[in-house]
Amino acid sequence: MQSTEARLSKNSLSLTLRRYSAAVSNMEQTVLVPSLLRDVPSDELCDCEETCCDLYHSYLMLKTIRDTVERGLVSPDDRKASDRNLEPLLDMDEEGQFHFHLRGLFTVMRDLTTRTHSVTEKYKDIIGVAN
Amino acid sequence: MQSTEARLSKNSLSLTLRRYSAAVSNMEQTVLVPSLLRDVPSDELCDCEETCCDLYHSYLMLKTIRDTVERGLVSPDDRKASDRNLEPLLDMDEEGQFHFHLRGLFTVMRDLTTRTHSVTEKYKDIIGVAN
Repeated sequence: MQSTEARLSKNSLSLTLRRYSAAVSNMEQTVLVPSLLRDVPSDELCDCEETCCDLYHSYLMLKTIRDTVERGLVSPDDRKASDRNLEPLLDMDEEGQFHFHLRGLFTVMRDLTTRTHSVTEKYKDIIGVAN
Repeated sequence: MQSTEARLSKNSLSLTLRRYSAAVSNMEQTVLVPSLLRDVPSDELCDCEETCCDLYHSYLMLKTIRDTVERGLVSPDDRKASDRNLEPLLDMDEEGQFHFHLRGLFTVMRDLTTRTHSVTEKYKDIIGVAN
């Protein structure tokens, strides 16, 4: 019988999650002095000029999301919040909800992986390391 | 450095996806004559009395979802459909979308895993195998 690992395609969600974890691990290993990212503006569209939009904030947020992907438990309070957000989906069956969330998570994880690579590359620019 | 595998907690999405795949593999290995599930009503709430609600339909649907989890690629058409569904989320940032879809997928995968175990147990009842 073929193992689950062997059946994973390059476009599966599982592999997308692993790629994201690997990108964050690489970022952590590269960014040895995270405070150098403070006040460096992010490319992300942002309405404010607060520190919440700098690369240091992105660095912390991307690490937190990685931890949630790997260890994340939805707390009762979080689930309650989720239920409110799910109101527009109440007319979907389980199969519909599965496809909706799978597509959504797949897309956002790819965007976050790109953003992680971007933070890593910008840190290299800051410290003058050639790519 | 601790490996990614070792850091996976029992409540992570990755482990939830693996549990689902394992439950479907167990169902496949148990249900040797799937046609016996035809016309056996599902416990799921269902507005119709069509065959789409029988256990055979559940068996096929659960296998298809497992394949999508492991190999699924979102086609351009699917993504377009997804974008329409995502309209209520347009005001969320990437972090918000991540949490929304993670919670949603976590919940629906747990429900689908329970449903898979239920199909397996009902098949055993049908063929008279004691649990």
